[in-house]
Formats: sequence, structure tokens, C-alpha cells
Amino acid sequence: MKASQFFISTLKEAPADAEVASHQLMTRAGLIKKLGAGIYSWMPMGLRVIRKIETIVREEMNHAGAVELLMPVVQPAEFWQETDRWNKMGPELMRVKDRHGRDFVIQPTSEEVVTDIARQELRSYKQLPRNLYHIQTKFRDERRPRFGVMRSREFIMKDAYSFDRDLDAAKISYQAMAKAYRAIFDRFGLRYRAVAADSGAIGGDLSEEFQVIAATGEDAIVYCPSSDYAANMEKAEALAPAGPRPAAAQPMTKTPTPGKATCADVAALLGVPLQNTVKSLVLATDETNEAGEIIRSQVWLLLLRGDHDMNEIKVGKVPGLDAGFRFATLGEIEEHFGCKPGYLGPMGLKKPVKIVADREVAVMADWICGANEPDFHITGVNWGRDLPEPDAVADLRNIVEGDRSPDGKGVLAVERGIEVGHIFVLGTKYSEDMNATFLAEDGKPAFFEMGCYGIGITRLPAAAIEQNHDERGIIWPDAIAPFTVVLCPITPERFPEVKAAAEQLYAQLLAAGVDVILDDRGERPGAMFADWELIGVPHRVTIGDRGLKDGLVEYQHRRDTGATKIALTDILAHLKGRLSL
Amino acid sequence: MKASQFFISTLKEAPADAEVASHQLMTRAGLIKKLGAGIYSWMPMGLRVIRKIETIVREEMNHAGAVELLMPVVQPAEFWQETDRWNKMGPELMRVKDRHGRDFVIQPTSEEVVTDIARQELRSYKQLPRNLYHIQTKFRDERRPRFGVMRSREFIMKDAYSFDRDLDAAKISYQAMAKAYRAIFDRFGLRYRAVAADSGAIGGDLSEEFQVIAATGEDAIVYCPSSDYAANMEKAEALAPAGPRPAAAQPMTKTPTPGKATCADVAALLGVPLQNTVKSLVLATDETNEAGEIIRSQVWLLLLRGDHDMNEIKVGKVPGLDAGFRFATLGEIEEHFGCKPGYLGPMGLKKPVKIVADREVAVMADWICGANEPDFHITGVNWGRDLPEPDAVADLRNIVEGDRSPDGKGVLAVERGIEVGHIFVLGTKYSEDMNATFLAEDGKPAFFEMGCYGIGITRLPAAAIEQNHDERGIIWPDAIAPFTVVLCPITPERFPEVKAAAEQLYAQLLAAGVDVILDDRGERPGAMFADWELIGVPHRVTIGDRGLKDGLVEYQHRRDTGATKIALTDILAHLKGRLSL
Repeated sequence: MKASQFFISTLKEAPADAEVASHQLMTRAGLIKKLGAGIYSWMPMGLRVIRKIETIVREEMNHAGAVELLMPVVQPAEFWQETDRWNKMGPELMRVKDRHGRDFVIQPTSEEVVTDIARQELRSYKQLPRNLYHIQTKFRDERRPRFGVMRSREFIMKDAYSFDRDLDAAKISYQAMAKAYRAIFDRFGLRYRAVAADSGAIGGDLSEEFQVIAATGEDAIVYCPSSDYAANMEKAEALAPAGPRPAAAQPMTKTPTPGKATCADVAALLGVPLQNTVKSLVLATDETNEAGEIIRSQVWLLLLRGDHDMNEIKVGKVPGLDAGFRFATLGEIEEHFGCKPGYLGPMGLKKPVKIVADREVAVMADWICGANEPDFHITGVNWGRDLPEPDAVADLRNIVEGDRSPDGKGVLAVERGIEVGHIFVLGTKYSEDMNATFLAEDGKPAFFEMGCYGIGITRLPAAAIEQNHDERGIIWPDAIAPFTVVLCPITPERFPEVKAAAEQLYAQLLAAGVDVILDDRGERPGAMFADWELIGVPHRVTIGDRGLKDGLVEYQHRRDTGATKIALTDILAHLKGRLSL
Repeated sequence: MKASQFFISTLKEAPADAEVASHQLMTRAGLIKKLGAGIYSWMPMGLRVIRKIETIVREEMNHAGAVELLMPVVQPAEFWQETDRWNKMGPELMRVKDRHGRDFVIQPTSEEVVTDIARQELRSYKQLPRNLYHIQTKFRDERRPRFGVMRSREFIMKDAYSFDRDLDAAKISYQAMAKAYRAIFDRFGLRYRAVAADSGAIGGDLSEEFQVIAATGEDAIVYCPSSDYAANMEKAEALAPAGPRPAAAQPMTKTPTPGKATCADVAALLGVPLQNTVKSLVLATDETNEAGEIIRSQVWLLLLRGDHDMNEIKVGKVPGLDAGFRFATLGEIEEHFGCKPGYLGPMGLKKPVKIVADREVAVMADWICGANEPDFHITGVNWGRDLPEPDAVADLRNIVEGDRSPDGKGVLAVERGIEVGHIFVLGTKYSEDMNATFLAEDGKPAFFEMGCYGIGITRLPAAAIEQNHDERGIIWPDAIAPFTVVLCPITPERFPEVKAAAEQLYAQLLAAGVDVILDDRGERPGAMFADWELIGVPHRVTIGDRGLKDGLVEYQHRRDTGATKIALTDILAHLKGRLSL
């Protein structure tokens, strides 16, 4: 491609609404153009990145035996009513009426439509397994679209759906996708982690997120540097402390802590480590009758170490809390504790509550908690001696750096990531809702066991940039760069030998199958270099008249701080080496 | 591709709602699957056709210097309000509100968005010409979607938009697209015609439709078999008859024609050719004041030969009718003619009307028209002798077979076509509405001269099938076939040498870059052949044990009535020859 025949549009300034580096750089480099809130055009430079991503995804999906089709963007509501997502999904689901007043959705995903295809097309177990995917435009009416294409409303996603005869077969389909996703993300050339995610009702290790590592990522990733353990924060297990509970060493003492309503304030006042304190979280569960009216409520007290954070997913798995819970009302708290929040604790209750201690709290000795009396805490508290053992002990908290790895092979670290892929076993949720069955080997109808596998195609460039940029602009990995090599002749209009050398190298690179762009726009060197550093083409060759006199050109990788002089006669071989051609 | 790893789903019966061959065959061959009225999934077999079409279109568009981008499916209404298409387009424009109640459209085309991009990005004449295109999902809420993907609501279209500094430059951009479209349609391997179409206000030869020839086509195409003249029915000019008007030979006579209110009935009653009769069509134009109220109306009488049909586009170009016209009301007719329709004519009017004669009528002698008296016509009518020459003479009618070609090179023929592409110069309509300007060479802002170039990507397979099918199924041209070659081994599970020969040929064809599918499903020969004839793969090689004993396999093109025995050692060369490899 010659730059004069392409569309290059760079900006000095990022738009005011661009909060993150990727959004700023994608706009400045002319990859995207905003049309409305959360709606972007992919400009020619950006579309090249998308096409390369799509090609890698398509090749690896096909290689893994998945078959591509294309399901519609606009889908009749009737399918969404079958699964009740029409009601369950809130305003994120973009709804539209046609001229006859019939309801449709602009698809955010295609479980319903693909399940409808399966129930018509896959009639026998002999047609299974089957994995169908498409790469299609989707829409989610985000309440607050932001970060450019990272959280846009219209986006392109690759979503695949597997259909299997039973859960064991579904696990094999899932594993094939787990392998294909690793191949895909390896080919992208990004640092990423496949992290275990919560697989909800299915259970087992049947859900993984593919996170592109970036300091600005929204998600916390837990991993073990000395093993291959990785999980997202929701999923990562906090092991019970290794040793037994220490013996009590302090007397229990009621201590005035006027105005100190947080663990941190209490620890500071008393001059003790925050790790000696215990925080009280009060939840409630409701029992309802058939009419949905609440007939009985139960109040729960969760105890976590003062420096730990509650993990709602884990709390939702505690027996008794696993059918749904809520935070207790102020009225319920006063009724049971006789005290306002800030000074709550497990002792001296007005009415009994169920007490669940985090694994860590269960083995603490001489701890500090609220006294259930305003402006007072209790120090030197010990299980067994001062209060009964808790009703239950469970993993209730988020991992922190330094926790022991669940695989026993070291301690955990935490980093940030951007979720770009997610694979998981769906089970029979959709096939049951839509009565999608096949004839099993025993001649009886059985529900499909399904799996679901997504990649955010238009989100990936943003994640790649969050991971790979500097103050000058984007730094693309070779595989998804809009162009792999840029040739920059210096004032070729004055030096015919520069123009000729650039044209010849351009032709040689094209012949070698290299995705090269020759900058023939006639820009001044400074502006030209600034453009390509902003756009982030990984390999640059500069051809100038002074170098050519000595038979030299300059090569610079986008990550290099300076250029390397290379003989014109060697540059093709050099580039081929860098590109592994 | 091996069939066992692909998704093949054929049906014996077409769905009840499939009215045309292409819809029936696309459904039976498993190319598409209906999801709702006018909404289809592209199944794996069909998607392969779409991808091949897209690739051809993309290659030729890029070759012609157009640059691809991707504009959104969901577009804010504000852009559509700028051009007033928000109001002018009826219920075909699919409108949708987001969670905040803001208006959007699901794009049917992207003139507004591309013009918005141009007014931001193309600031100087130095950046022109520019041609931007995308291949994107579109939606038109057709009142009556039908014929499968031929007239669906959701569809994929390639739409390109050119931006130029003036009309001369726009014509050059247009010509580049006219050339690219011929290259595209040539590569599709379909019989097609590029026909001149009406270019509306722009004038000149700046609009062409690309029509795929098919007996079932909705459009009538006029062409000259002995020259390259071709136009659609709206555009094709009917020349004035060659000779002068014959002299009057009959006396004017009022003739009773009781109950004969049509030209055909009158001609039959009087025993004369229909070509001797003249039909009267009464139109009206309205003059309005600033408030839009009608202050004056003018009645017009159009005279056409009895066997000719009025062409509304041509009538709309007659001076005085070119600002819009309507059919006259019954009241206006009675007021001016003193008679009901069926017996109207240009003589004996109650109030004067403007008379426009078709070119053909203007040179007729001794013709027959209504007497403006119920149940009476007048015969032997002659211009000049019996009534004054008409106020105007114009081309008012549709072409019929045998009319002289406007290029003077023979007579015209008419055939049917399916419009799949359309290119035309838009002028400054959108750039003026959206105030889209660039700085011209004289330093002043100027409106872009635009052009617009569409191809109905998802309509093309249907058009191809309407043109190319037989009672057994589809017959694809090589370039857009889902697979180019199918290998059919006969009971390979019983004959290892058959399996081995098929696998070897499969590997050889893959290595040669041929898009081949090996049918390894284990179907019986009859069912296997029926499937591939229905699906329409153009080249089939059958490998059986009996032939192999003599070193032979069978080749059959989808259009052949029988198979040809070819040596196994020659089949690769034979296929390469057929495929021009």
C-alpha cells in the first residue's frame, strides 16, 4: 500500500472525553472516529487491525473444528421470550419495534438464535459434537459507555456455541476451545493470562477468562509466579491459614474508641496492626411464600479480618446464603445488635444471628471487634473463651498479594487485566428453556449440553494498546499491526535515488508477502516519523540520500530508542529475519 | 474441507412461503435459514458464497483506489435529521430509541455518516478525490419482505461514496467505479448488463444499474442486440418515428362504441389494429402559495398510442410537469371534458387543457380517440385538419420490442433482470444538506460533489441462482461457488483403494489452491449426488472401485448431462484446465 492511496489522519490532541491511553491514541492515530456515545466508525487504519484479528480468530476456530455461519443482527423477540432474557435483561438489551409493532432486539449475543438452529438442524446424537460460530456486530445499550471501543455500545464479537450429547462430551469441546484460545492469543503477540473464572451453577473448572495484562485493566487477576495457577479475583481461593489457632494471650477488654468507626481508625488509635482487627458485615436472607411475600428473615454476621475485602461471589456460595442475600437494613441491625454500624461485633447481641467467620478470622487470637455499643470496641477477643465457635467458617474474602497459592506451589501475586475472551460451559440452561433436544443413543430425546466462547474483536485493539504504548504512541505486535513495515524515504522529490531505492524495496517486500506501506505523501521527516510512531507500525526503514551514498539505510523497531544503519543490500534479509519469514 | 467437518443440511421440500426458485433452492440447499419475516441466518454453506463475493468486491474496489472503512449499523438520528431523511423516509427506515429515549436508526445506507466523516476529515481540495466504502449489515423495514434474501429486511451491502472537488472530477470517479463494477461482475461469472438509469436532477449519463439477467427478474431491461446500448425501462428513450406524418386519408367520423371504454375494445369492435387508437391520460399540476395551499391547478391531457404504456419518469421531465404532477380528479375531468373516463379525447373540450402528444402520436394520421361523449369515439382524426397541433410533443412511453435503438444501430429488445448494483453521481445534495465543504483551490469553501456506488452482497447469490439453476438444483459459476470441486468416493468404507485415491486427489487439489470438498460422510451414492447437485458445486469427481480397476475416475460438470471417464493420472491436470489454473 502506498500512503498516498490510503487514508491517514492523525491528530495532535486527543478528544476531551478520552480518559484512557487507548482511547486517546486510537483517536489520535485515526483508527476510530466517534459517531455518538459508544458508537464508533472504524477508519481504514483501524479496520486493518480488526481484519487481522478476525483472520487469526477465524483460522484457529476453523482449525479447532468450529464452523462459521452468520446470524442476524436484528432478532425477533419471541426467541428472547422463550429464555425470558427479554424480561431478565434490563435496558442494556436494545429493543426495537418494526412497522407492524412487532418486537425485536439488536443482538448482544446469539444463544437463542443458535439454539433455535440446533433444535431444527441437530436431530441425532450422530450429528454431535457441533461448534458453530459467527463474527458479527452486536449492541449493548451500556448505561455509561466509555473508554472508546473498550466499553462501546456497538461492537464486534466472535461468539461460538458448542452442542454436545452429555457433560463429558461438552468438557471435551470446552477443552478444544481452551486450546484454540491459547493459540489465538499466542498469535496476537500480547501478554495475556487465561484465568479460572467462576462457573456458577455448573461447577468445576469450566470457565476461563482471557485477560490481556495491562496496568490500567479493570479486572484484578490473581496468579502464582512460581506455577501456572491463575484465576480472576472472584474465583481465586484464599486457603485456610497453615498453622493452628494461637493460644489466647490477652484478657478481653472493653476499650473506648470514640468516633473511631473503621478498623483502620481503631488500629491507629490503639497502635496495633490492622491485621489484629475484625470487621463485622451484616447480611440478611429472606424466606418468601408462593405469592413472593417475605414471611421470615434471617440476619447473618460475617467476620473478616480488618485488612480484607469481602468477595460477594464467595459469600454467595455459603450454605444458607447461596439462594440470594442482601445487606441488612438499619432497623434489622439495631434490632439484633442494639447498636449502629461502626461498633458492631459478635458479642452481646440483642437477638441471635448466624455468625460466619472467614477462614482467616477463624484462626485468629486476641482480636479486636466492635462492642455493640457506640464508641467502644473490645480487644483481646478469643474464640471458645469469650464467645462460642462460629456457626460456619468459609472463604469469604478477596485474595491479597502474598497469600498462599491454592496449588501449594508458592505465594500469589495480583495484576490488572482487560478481559477480551471468555469461554465457559453453559450446561442445559438454554436447551431446556427452548426445549432443544436431540435423539440420544438410547432413542430418547435429550437436552443439548452447551458451551459458549466469546472474543471481543473490537475490544482487543484497545487492550493491545493499553498494554503496548509509550509517550509517542502505539506499539503494535507484528501480527495485528495495521501495517508491519513502513518505508520512509526522506525528501524523495529531491533525490531520485532515494525514491528509486524506496520503490524497489517496497516491491521486494510486497513480493515477499510483507504488509508494507510506503510513505509517499511528501511529508517532512519530523511529521512523517511522528505519524508512524503514533500509529505504531512496528518496523520502520528510513531511506535518505546521505546514507545511500554509503549504501546504507536505517532500521528502527518501534521499541528501539535509536536507528541502526544497515546496508541497503542487507535490509530485505534483515526484515525477513525480524519478521520470521 | 472434509464434509464430515463441515455443516451440510439439505431438504427434500422447499418451505411453503418460498415463491421463487432461488428462495426454494437456497433453503433446500441449506444456504440460508429463516429467523423471521425478511430475516435470515447465513448457514455455513451460504456464508462461503458471501465471503467469495465480498472478496471479489473488496479486491476490485481496492484496485480502483477506494479505501475500506466500517461505519456503524446503529446511527444517531441527528445525522438523518440534517438531511431530513428522518422525515422523508417512511416506515422503511427502522427507528430505535436507546435507554435515554434518544433516537437512532438501523442504517439502510450511510450517506449521512460518510458525509459527516468527509466534512471533518477532508479539509482541502488536495485531499480529493476520495472514495470510501464499507461492507456492512443494513436494514430496511420492507412492507412485504419476500423472495428470501432477494427482498429481505436485513441484508449486507457494499456501499461506496466518492468525494470530488467539482462535477468533472466526480465524473472521473464515477467512470472509475463503472470500470470496477464491470470487473467485479465479470469476475462473478454471471450474465449481466450495465444499463443506463435515470440520473434525476444531475442529468447526463451518470447512473447505471448492474442487472443480472434472469427470466424471473423484477426489472425490464432494454438493450440493442447489435450494439452495446442498454438502459432500464425508465431511462430507455423512444425515438421519434423516422418518417414524416402520413397525409390524412379518412374523414373524421363520430362512431358509436357502446360500452367500449378501452382502446383494445374499440379496436376489436371496429376491426382495426390497436396501433390506430390513441389513449387519453388526464393529469394535473398544482400551484401553491407560501402556506402550501393550492391556489391554481392546471389540467393536462397526455396522448399515447393505444398499445403503449406511460412512463412516469419521462412524463416527469416534460416542462410544466417536471415540478410534480398527479392524476386528475373525476371532478376535474368532468369539468374539462364533460365526460367520464373511457371516452375522453382532445376535441370538443368544455374548458381548455394542455395537450402533450407522445412522439409516436404526433406523427399518426387517421387515428381514433374518445369523443368526450359516453359510448362514442371519433375515427379518422388528423392533426392540423381536425384539431390544432399539440401544445407539446415528448417521449412519454415505455419502449417495446422492435423500437429503434437510440444509438441508431438496430432495434431494441427487452429482457428481465435483477438489480444487484447501482452507481450514480449524487451531486451536492448531501454535502449541501450537511454543510460539508472543503477549501477549494481558490481558498473558498465548496461543497463536495459526491457519488454513490452500491452492490447488494446478500442479494447476489439469489440473482445468481435465478439465472443458473435447473430441476436438480443450483449451478454456481466457479468464482462464487461454496466449493469449486467436490470429490465423491463411492462406498470408500468397503474399498480402501477408493478411499486412498480420494484422499490423495483431495491433498493434491488443496496443494494446488483449489477450494475442494471431499464427501466423507458415508452417504449412499444417490443421496450424495442429489445433495451436490442441489448445492450446485460446479465440478464433481466420482471415484469408484470399478473405474479404479481400469485407472479411471469420472468427471462431471454440473451442467453436463453425463459423466466423462478420465484417467486418475490425468484428473488433476483436467481439473486445472477446467479451472484455468
